[in-house]
Amino acid sequence: MENQSYEVKMNGSGIHEKNALIGAVKSIVCLAKQKSCRQRWNIRPSEMSINTLNPIRAIVDGMKLTPNPEKPMIALSIGDPTVFGNLPTDDKVLQAMKDAIDSQKYNGYAPSVGYQKSREVVANFYSCPEAPLEAEDVLLTSGCSQAIDLAITVLCNPGDNILVPCPGFSLYKTLAVSLGIQVKLYNLLPEKSWEIDLQHMESLIDDRTTCLIVNNPSNPCGSVYSKEHLQNILSGEPCSFTPLATCVLYLHDQVFPGCTYQSTASLASDVPILACGGLAKRWLVPGWRLGWILIHDKNQIFGKEIRQGLVKLSQRILGACTIVQGAIESILNNTPQEFYHRTIRFLESNSEICFSELSTVPGLTPVMPSGAMYLMVGIEMEHFPEFQNDVQFTERLVTEQSVFCLPATAFEYPNYFRIVVTVPEEMMVEACTRIREFCQCHYRTCSRDSNELDQ
Amino acid sequence: MENQSYEVKMNGSGIHEKNALIGAVKSIVCLAKQKSCRQRWNIRPSEMSINTLNPIRAIVDGMKLTPNPEKPMIALSIGDPTVFGNLPTDDKVLQAMKDAIDSQKYNGYAPSVGYQKSREVVANFYSCPEAPLEAEDVLLTSGCSQAIDLAITVLCNPGDNILVPCPGFSLYKTLAVSLGIQVKLYNLLPEKSWEIDLQHMESLIDDRTTCLIVNNPSNPCGSVYSKEHLQNILSGEPCSFTPLATCVLYLHDQVFPGCTYQSTASLASDVPILACGGLAKRWLVPGWRLGWILIHDKNQIFGKEIRQGLVKLSQRILGACTIVQGAIESILNNTPQEFYHRTIRFLESNSEICFSELSTVPGLTPVMPSGAMYLMVGIEMEHFPEFQNDVQFTERLVTEQSVFCLPATAFEYPNYFRIVVTVPEEMMVEACTRIREFCQCHYRTCSRDSNELDQ
Ligand SMILES: Cc1ncc(COP(=O)(O)O)c(C=O)c1O
Ligand SMILES: Cc1ncc(COP(=O)(O)O)c(C=O)c1O
Repeated sequence: MENQSYEVKMNGSGIHEKNALIGAVKSIVCLAKQKSCRQRWNIRPSEMSINTLNPIRAIVDGMKLTPNPEKPMIALSIGDPTVFGNLPTDDKVLQAMKDAIDSQKYNGYAPSVGYQKSREVVANFYSCPEAPLEAEDVLLTSGCSQAIDLAITVLCNPGDNILVPCPGFSLYKTLAVSLGIQVKLYNLLPEKSWEIDLQHMESLIDDRTTCLIVNNPSNPCGSVYSKEHLQNILSGEPCSFTPLATCVLYLHDQVFPGCTYQSTASLASDVPILACGGLAKRWLVPGWRLGWILIHDKNQIFGKEIRQGLVKLSQRILGACTIVQGAIESILNNTPQEFYHRTIRFLESNSEICFSELSTVPGLTPVMPSGAMYLMVGIEMEHFPEFQNDVQFTERLVTEQSVFCLPATAFEYPNYFRIVVTVPEEMMVEACTRIREFCQCHYRTCSRDSNELDQ
Repeated sequence: MENQSYEVKMNGSGIHEKNALIGAVKSIVCLAKQKSCRQRWNIRPSEMSINTLNPIRAIVDGMKLTPNPEKPMIALSIGDPTVFGNLPTDDKVLQAMKDAIDSQKYNGYAPSVGYQKSREVVANFYSCPEAPLEAEDVLLTSGCSQAIDLAITVLCNPGDNILVPCPGFSLYKTLAVSLGIQVKLYNLLPEKSWEIDLQHMESLIDDRTTCLIVNNPSNPCGSVYSKEHLQNILSGEPCSFTPLATCVLYLHDQVFPGCTYQSTASLASDVPILACGGLAKRWLVPGWRLGWILIHDKNQIFGKEIRQGLVKLSQRILGACTIVQGAIESILNNTPQEFYHRTIRFLESNSEICFSELSTVPGLTPVMPSGAMYLMVGIEMEHFPEFQNDVQFTERLVTEQSVFCLPATAFEYPNYFRIVVTVPEEMMVEACTRIREFCQCHYRTCSRDSNELDQ
């Protein structure tokens, strides 16, 4: 690419005129003993690293985030429930880890798919009569992220495409694109609590579509699908599409009281499913990096080959930290129910505060979640003519009110922003007050409306 | 590939004749309500998963490993120092982990390259005046395996090739081949304590060669390179090749007394180096999955781009478990020197026992290691005419003597086998006795020799 010239290399045994060789080598250094020799390295990062794109970073790094010095910053942007200290994990979870360390049984290599016993424990935890699981159906991974990586990598070749929710968690696209797999975004419908637009999804399927990714409960929407909707996804009804091998993500597999969480696998009679989950959000320890893939394949459609493919891929870097693997039995079996309930009650209460506050803010349309820890808020952009988009809107919200919400452009869904509801209640209340103030300040009746008023 | 026929799908709104669509989708299920409908899924694992080959598994799984029921099994095959319980990690290392848990400071997400503080601690531990390191030069990874994965992935595109030692640790090839990167094996010379055959290495370099992998100390050889040899590698002397961007692996960065371990980076004046290491072997906790890449780039040849490439790749699945990251400061700074010395003394003593025992076994040529925890033994196959190769030799060693050593064909190096010297001393002695018995039983003077005897 660059114009290059090459020096002749000299060494003790005389001058080697190896221009062909030297010129050819991609990364070279000229090593002649004369000082005049210039270096001619040409090392470029690989295509794959260049194509590993993180839209959240790309957008956030491009934003001018200078908080108002008169107001303390409130970050509603971070999908990490541990940052404010108000949602500690349970003591039993910590004790399980310390016991695993003391036992000295978990310092060596585990099988690349995880300890048999740990896989069995996860299988038992998620097994149900409609979708039974055994140890062999479970692979332990380094976080849910590696589970998703393995699932996409085993199912797709470069040139294939996958169906991904929009708005949706950005990792699917990051991983797929870096592997040369195309991503097709199917729409979720905010007016239907973020159900999938099945017709739109159908229209995207072509002969290279290998996998449908469903994220339920959803990041960034906090939506939880009804049994009926999941059945429609799985059966291809009421549209005419044929279901695909499916990855279902259920990292946030807890839902608010009054809503029932239905595991997709329990409804699937044919569709084979790789369900990806992990400890991160439900047990509030995302840093520990324990995830899993549950293989649901009643009719042997994945068969041995996909299983073997997953095992082979798991041998590349091996999976999760053995101490966490050793602790998983106690974590899953001994964590008191009250811990889960308390977390859920907190998230629901904060969601309700946030939803009911923002519902009465002119120009905003929050969508009430049913689970997880997120809430999406629509911005009626026509009422905020000062801002071109959600990125500018949220940027200025920082400048003026020191409140940071992630613009949903980061989820490929402009004109919304995402609120993470894990912050302490008083911060949530304060943040809503400031958002209201901000909107009141910038809200304009639409030009058409104002024309009408003028008349 | 298969002959397929497709049914017309029916649903509530009538018959949809979407044969083109349905026939095209790779993974489909026929969902017509008639029972007669047959399934037409066709899900195949991806090329990448098919091309993720693990030679050790391929060979070991193909072996008939039925121990002699009269002798208890001795496995000298497992590169995991924890399996026999005789090499526990230090109590301070365990305490560091429990402290990290109790602090509750390490439950959330860390940056994908690791906590700043933990990177700084690793930088300080490995920094030396000739090759200074700062926190920015360190990426923490999920084991040394992920470090190698990131290093190869950032430097190479499909179609490029890398130079890999032979015999060598199989992961380099596994990772590279799965990414479409070609592997060229350069020879190590057993008669020169496994130094690199620089002339052979030179002959392999072509215009798509992007990276030289050096493993020092070596798995499977246990060799440790002298300063002079490393300088020759780095300078391309006494041959005429031009050094390449280099990955150096130093996971086993402890060597026996009397030998000095020289870090390659400390000798490199131009060659940019990604040095991959981790906690696994020196701290005897391979299951914990903490590794690192140290970026040595005095002359900014990697520059910002390779660093950014590594950061981007690290965001795919994030790195190491945060508890281990939180413990690393205390692990590196508070582990008593005596712990390292004890481990090394044990490994050296066991190596000497093994070496001196096997040196006097007719037909075997062990090579004394200088570090790490492995020892390679040559089999003079001409003296063992019953066996075609090292695989058959080691297989029968199990059948008759219940001793299992990994045939070096697993490291692309036939007619050798590898012994792991971490077993308790009495097992090492017993294993050597049995190997001697086995060899005495099967040793034949060469046919030429026996002819001579006949004459
Ligand atoms: C839907 C979804 N999938 C995957 C992940 C990543 O999970 P982990 O941290 O276990 O890798 C997240 C994290 O927020 C998520 O929201
Ligand atoms: C040379 C070498 N590199 C890398 C590894 C893998 O290290 P880790 O277990 O930290 O991934 C090993 C393990 O034996 C090894 O010997």
